[in-house]
Amino acid sequence: MYFYKEDLINMIVPDKPDPSAAKVLQETLGGRFGEMRTMMQFFFQSSNFRGNQKQYRDLIRGVFLEEISHVELVQTTINQLLNGSGEEAVGAGGSTGAPLEEAIKHANPHHFIMGAQSSLPVDAAGNPWNGNYVYSHGNLISDLLDNLVLESTGVLQKSRIYEMSSNKTFRETLAFLIVRDNAHQNAFAKALETLGVDWAKIFPVPNYDINKYPECRKYIEMGFHNAQFNFRLDETLIGQIFQGESPSRDDGTLQVVPPPEGHPVPVLPEMPNEHSPGIQDLNK
Amino acid sequence: MYFYKEDLINMIVPDKPDPSAAKVLQETLGGRFGEMRTMMQFFFQSSNFRGNQKQYRDLIRGVFLEEISHVELVQTTINQLLNGSGEEAVGAGGSTGAPLEEAIKHANPHHFIMGAQSSLPVDAAGNPWNGNYVYSHGNLISDLLDNLVLESTGVLQKSRIYEMSSNKTFRETLAFLIVRDNAHQNAFAKALETLGVDWAKIFPVPNYDINKYPECRKYIEMGFHNAQFNFRLDETLIGQIFQGESPSRDDGTLQVVPPPEGHPVPVLPEMPNEHSPGIQDLNK
Amino acid sequence: MYFYKEDLINMIVPDKPDPSAAKVLQETLGGRFGEMRTMMQFFFQSSNFRGNQKQYRDLIRGVFLEEISHVELVQTTINQLLNGSGEEAVGAGGSTGAPLEEAIKHANPHHFIMGAQSSLPVDAAGNPWNGNYVYSHGNLISDLLDNLVLESTGVLQKSRIYEMSSNKTFRETLAFLIVRDNAHQNAFAKALETLGVDWAKIFPVPNYDINKYPECRKYIEMGFHNAQFNFRLDETLIGQIFQGESPSRDDGTLQVVPPPEGHPVPVLPEMPNEHSPGIQDLNK
Amino acid sequence: MYFYKEDLINMIVPDKPDPSAAKVLQETLGGRFGEMRTMMQFFFQSSNFRGNQKQYRDLIRGVFLEEISHVELVQTTINQLLNGSGEEAVGAGGSTGAPLEEAIKHANPHHFIMGAQSSLPVDAAGNPWNGNYVYSHGNLISDLLDNLVLESTGVLQKSRIYEMSSNKTFRETLAFLIVRDNAHQNAFAKALETLGVDWAKIFPVPNYDINKYPECRKYIEMGFHNAQFNFRLDETLIGQIFQGESPSRDDGTLQVVPPPEGHPVPVLPEMPNEHSPGIQDLNK
Amino acid sequence: MYFYKEDLINMIVPDKPDPSAAKVLQETLGGRFGEMRTMMQFFFQSSNFRGNQKQYRDLIRGVFLEEISHVELVQTTINQLLNGSGEEAVGAGGSTGAPLEEAIKHANPHHFIMGAQSSLPVDAAGNPWNGNYVYSHGNLISDLLDNLVLESTGVLQKSRIYEMSSNKTFRETLAFLIVRDNAHQNAFAKALETLGVDWAKIFPVPNYDINKYPECRKYIEMGFHNAQFNFRLDETLIGQIFQGESPSRDDGTLQVVPPPEGHPVPVLPEMPNEHSPGIQDLNK
Amino acid sequence: MYFYKEDLINMIVPDKPDPSAAKVLQETLGGRFGEMRTMMQFFFQSSNFRGNQKQYRDLIRGVFLEEISHVELVQTTINQLLNGSGEEAVGAGGSTGAPLEEAIKHANPHHFIMGAQSSLPVDAAGNPWNGNYVYSHGNLISDLLDNLVLESTGVLQKSRIYEMSSNKTFRETLAFLIVRDNAHQNAFAKALETLGVDWAKIFPVPNYDINKYPECRKYIEMGFHNAQFNFRLDETLIGQIFQGESPSRDDGTLQVVPPPEGHPVPVLPEMPNEHSPGIQDLNK
Repeated sequence: MYFYKEDLINMIVPDKPDPSAAKVLQETLGGRFGEMRTMMQFFFQSSNFRGNQKQYRDLIRGVFLEEISHVELVQTTINQLLNGSGEEAVGAGGSTGAPLEEAIKHANPHHFIMGAQSSLPVDAAGNPWNGNYVYSHGNLISDLLDNLVLESTGVLQKSRIYEMSSNKTFRETLAFLIVRDNAHQNAFAKALETLGVDWAKIFPVPNYDINKYPECRKYIEMGFHNAQFNFRLDETLIGQIFQGESPSRDDGTLQVVPPPEGHPVPVLPEMPNEHSPGIQDLNK
Repeated sequence: MYFYKEDLINMIVPDKPDPSAAKVLQETLGGRFGEMRTMMQFFFQSSNFRGNQKQYRDLIRGVFLEEISHVELVQTTINQLLNGSGEEAVGAGGSTGAPLEEAIKHANPHHFIMGAQSSLPVDAAGNPWNGNYVYSHGNLISDLLDNLVLESTGVLQKSRIYEMSSNKTFRETLAFLIVRDNAHQNAFAKALETLGVDWAKIFPVPNYDINKYPECRKYIEMGFHNAQFNFRLDETLIGQIFQGESPSRDDGTLQVVPPPEGHPVPVLPEMPNEHSPGIQDLNK
Repeated sequence: MYFYKEDLINMIVPDKPDPSAAKVLQETLGGRFGEMRTMMQFFFQSSNFRGNQKQYRDLIRGVFLEEISHVELVQTTINQLLNGSGEEAVGAGGSTGAPLEEAIKHANPHHFIMGAQSSLPVDAAGNPWNGNYVYSHGNLISDLLDNLVLESTGVLQKSRIYEMSSNKTFRETLAFLIVRDNAHQNAFAKALETLGVDWAKIFPVPNYDINKYPECRKYIEMGFHNAQFNFRLDETLIGQIFQGESPSRDDGTLQVVPPPEGHPVPVLPEMPNEHSPGIQDLNK
Repeated sequence: MYFYKEDLINMIVPDKPDPSAAKVLQETLGGRFGEMRTMMQFFFQSSNFRGNQKQYRDLIRGVFLEEISHVELVQTTINQLLNGSGEEAVGAGGSTGAPLEEAIKHANPHHFIMGAQSSLPVDAAGNPWNGNYVYSHGNLISDLLDNLVLESTGVLQKSRIYEMSSNKTFRETLAFLIVRDNAHQNAFAKALETLGVDWAKIFPVPNYDINKYPECRKYIEMGFHNAQFNFRLDETLIGQIFQGESPSRDDGTLQVVPPPEGHPVPVLPEMPNEHSPGIQDLNK
Repeated sequence: MYFYKEDLINMIVPDKPDPSAAKVLQETLGGRFGEMRTMMQFFFQSSNFRGNQKQYRDLIRGVFLEEISHVELVQTTINQLLNGSGEEAVGAGGSTGAPLEEAIKHANPHHFIMGAQSSLPVDAAGNPWNGNYVYSHGNLISDLLDNLVLESTGVLQKSRIYEMSSNKTFRETLAFLIVRDNAHQNAFAKALETLGVDWAKIFPVPNYDINKYPECRKYIEMGFHNAQFNFRLDETLIGQIFQGESPSRDDGTLQVVPPPEGHPVPVLPEMPNEHSPGIQDLNK
Repeated sequence: MYFYKEDLINMIVPDKPDPSAAKVLQETLGGRFGEMRTMMQFFFQSSNFRGNQKQYRDLIRGVFLEEISHVELVQTTINQLLNGSGEEAVGAGGSTGAPLEEAIKHANPHHFIMGAQSSLPVDAAGNPWNGNYVYSHGNLISDLLDNLVLESTGVLQKSRIYEMSSNKTFRETLAFLIVRDNAHQNAFAKALETLGVDWAKIFPVPNYDINKYPECRKYIEMGFHNAQFNFRLDETLIGQIFQGESPSRDDGTLQVVPPPEGHPVPVLPEMPNEHSPGIQDLNK
């Protein structure tokens, strides 16, 4: 069973609305290599796990638990990027202005139609998330290799999306997730090391230069690239795998640690022109 | 952030393998009105919630938290129904038997191809789950009405699926979920009552006769149709809505209660013929 | 604007339930070459028609109007094939029978889950109808050639589906539609003749032998393969094209005629075990 | 059977081309809550209706009939918005201009590729319409609640799309449809009132302020929000439900009325550069 | 079996990057009437061909073989249009510039996220290619008519896309393909002539004026519109059909000829900011 | 450019019709890990390759070329399994038999409707192939790892499908492909070895026992698991990578070799009841 404490796993840095950034950040939420995919893939793999080598199941499930928080973080980041992007309402009395005309020009129009300027289960091109993204092969090596591709591509795509806006809300979330995807690469690469593989110097993939993503630095300094947060309320065998030398070039040491300190979940402002939540005057 | 204790929200009752039942039960997992839909819909609605009437957000999120456990319960039930359904292996030395030939006749062949006889993010007709199932309208009345349709259709479909096999593993899970969907109907119907609606006698939808679903009886007797489990580790305002007289015909009283006692997560047997997990002999 | 008289365009011949036939007949409703495709393709082409040669637009729209009735005819035929296919209910008091277990074996399980044994917007393999089936090219020759392929494939597929069951309800509807698709082939082939094409003896496609589809004979004898029903309440120029010698091998004469006599729309029986319509006891 | 008179259900107000408006208006045609969905959902529900309480079937079918006209109205509006948006042709003799380069910048490029600047069965993000949007549950209460969500979301989305352009062609059609969706909300809400529900003051959803949508005023004054047009050529029982006090806040009276006066279907100009219709010179 | 010589079937003319042109050119690669569709449709039709009239199979397969080269040509053209479109990198030391911010404004963001500025199996609206585009009816007349629609629509759409940019890389590839689609129209039209059809003057469709597409002229002068390239390493019967008078208005003569002279496959530049290929420093 | 010699890459072993086997074998053709995916993924990756380390591009392209033959082999195998599965026609004079009634019971009905008993671009559950299966990341390590997962899963799924029928036509093709997928695993694993990785004993994945798949033995004995066929008509650098010790447990030596001897492409019998090819009597 799953429990919740109302805390975001990372901070939301304030900046201006940026609907174009919200559009491309959807890839990180609902794309083929986004957080919904990792969350659901690791959920299915841990529920479908066969055999009694539970340390591998606990590893996969441990990453799954964090991915739920990642989904929430990206949803909230997208909402923050959209908040106020079509600020000025149609004036009372019948102005003919079109307050969303500019806002949608480089945006996903569904952000303004399907919901009240809020996140969607779609990718950067507007394609809805699809169950066929999820692989749960049942063979442990296939599953681990697949997860490694998934986390590698996660970093790769985020490093490309990062170059699409200099908005601080946008980049802080991407930077945090780049570092965490690096940690999850380490988790699956290490699991394959227990089966004999020696990765030499190919990880992390891609071979990113931290100087290009300055927001990443503090997370690296806090060791987040070599840590696995533990969201279990009971015992877990994850530490049997996630320990010892990092499989990445950086020579660090892997360590299971408690969850990070939580950050407040923002209260999203009402949006009367989008009729959200739309219950203000009901009992007048 | 999300925390986990390795407990299923309900028991898995043992019975024979039944791949045909596994196929139709997929509707409850990955169908348009299945648990993945409710889980993701309530997740998006709670993250996208606007305004400071947080009691409604806490209600939606509270149901979301339980739905994660429902997804896990249905995954596990499907796995149990599949376990051993193609038991006999191709004999060493090159027998020409085809152990899965019978098993797949009325089954979803993907259960045996994509994974090692395990659950998938698809529906009863084999269509993958799709992000376009999720609605997060941003208008509270629209969202609540939509959720009410969702939970009503959940019961409706489960009552029909129930008639497709008398397998006990299958029916116990369906019965538990029918009663819980009834409770969630009560949650959203009650939320609309706080805005003035009087439902008269139309709930629960459908107007099911408990005598037809005998496995439901014990859950009704335990009051599960009028209870909302609380999976929060911090405070929640859900009790401001989920309290008082039930909006359903039964005249009960709604009550927020602690989570039910957990049930063990089964260890799924290895399946060497499906190469799962397939790591036995690696270090020989 | 569109008007309605509660009449089916052809009769529903009674026979036993046949859920397997209902499954494959879905191709004719929601398949890539089914009636929903023809209906929507001709709807878009007539609304999007450019230029003042309105006789072509009237021809396309004239066929569209009939296709709405075809959709209704196939929906009703499927419903008739499903009615009573899971007759015996789970007995009061908790019998453990599973009345739908047999019914779904060769059926589309969604017929029993999504609705109360009724038609769906999907094809014979369970794939939902998709807007990408519709072509409205804007170039008249492309549109007419595409429509000709569509009607030819319509006959071709129906002649194959016909061999999948000897159920009379099923075959009568297919036979009627085979003859009408032949007429619609004639309509589009004739329209291309007005632009100069000479088809020689290639139509109808396929070159079907009426003796294999005995139910077709009476429709041929009534001239339905060379007639275009007129569903317009105002003037139409369709007769400028649909007249003269048939472009098919049969040497008949094309003629615009009034709609056929209507047939009663059946009242579908209630299905209490499927909770349909489920309002019987509400006011007790 | 279905009959047609060449009349649009509402006027097309002339204004400049606006391909960006055409793009977002596609949501109203081919979106999850657009007119194709309502049309097909009510079509399936009325054909699949079980039992002899035909007043409910007649109500659902009555709304279906109007929705066919709505689809045609939105198709025509989109065509009007696209007409002439890439006006200037590539000059004879081989100019290297690219007349569509500007036009497609904020447009759906398929409007210019798939057809000759004309409507498509897709939504505002370019996703094709999908049969999985249609729900026909077979349980009357589920169907009515679902239809109510559908009509409520219809108004909600149209009120948001309205803010995306001040083009008069665009806004007039949206305004008419907002008022008609309000009437259809009343239809389904009233049907649930006959089963005992009291809606208090929650309808219409959203609680829209007519002063923001000045084009709506005349339709309200004509009573279109409380009227149900009757497109039947035979008897209908719709008036048994659609009568008496409106379930909305406005205290009006529901009334079945004849169809509105028709408006001319425009002849779309030829578009030689798009090769539409492309038959001008064939017989030279 | 299939053999390869590293040659492009046509030249890549250099010009500036143009990501907006790359976006719309995707229609020609992954659209419903693009080169992936023609390639796969003719592949399935030739493998599924029934009967011993092998001249028709050889014709369909002959066109298939060329289409593989067309796919490669369009992929390479898109890559050329994207190369360098987000040139300037994020500076070392943490500049906050966002080099892709401009590039993606009118682009498909997936070109920059999924790959390192390279082609994708999607259409101009970003929808992934779908197997339901492929038709292999098994009836030769249906297949030939369908292929004729396909090649006609190919020219039609390319002539529209041509107007969306004056980029030379873009237009040269489109011009070559327009002429080759004309040749393939001739192939399928001629095959239907062998069955008796007389096309009069309707081909080519559309009735394009070569003066509007000046890049086409040289290909027409080289006779590419009446030639079928022969990619067979063994005997073929294609010449039994593809010979004699062209079915198009131009009165030319159809002729099977050797493949055109090949053009060099460009080496795409590395793109370090996109981590492509990303292996430079691995062994440092 | 691509050239063809009419030869299958492996033999088609005759056996009885088996439409149920044809249904599941579709996974190998149009599934997420089937031959269409490998073919298109390696096609995109080789066209999109960046940088001048052409030995990697030649390796990927080399595998691509073979995959085209694999697609043709599986299409032909499916056709052979379907040939004659609905043998007996509806008798002349109007017999009411339904020759396909039995055939479709455990079949994909589209095999009998869409084509004349022939292969389709779909998977074992009937879902059409989708462009979103293709990954071309642009980062060489990501691409190689992804290809390795793809080939590993290819073997894994084929070993499971193998157990679904003992039909010889079916198993021979699967056995050949299992061995070839093993060779392709070796290709991509070896490429990663050139970047430093040491795989220890984890390959091949899965760890299959050749005694269970006796048809594989002869291919292993011919060294097909360690060979890469060369389909280039010009020079290739593939041998720079595909050489030396196999990365798999078997200690063999990798070697680039000429293509295997070809096998005849069968002439599929006409199927008059399916109107295929349907041109017999046209000129009578």
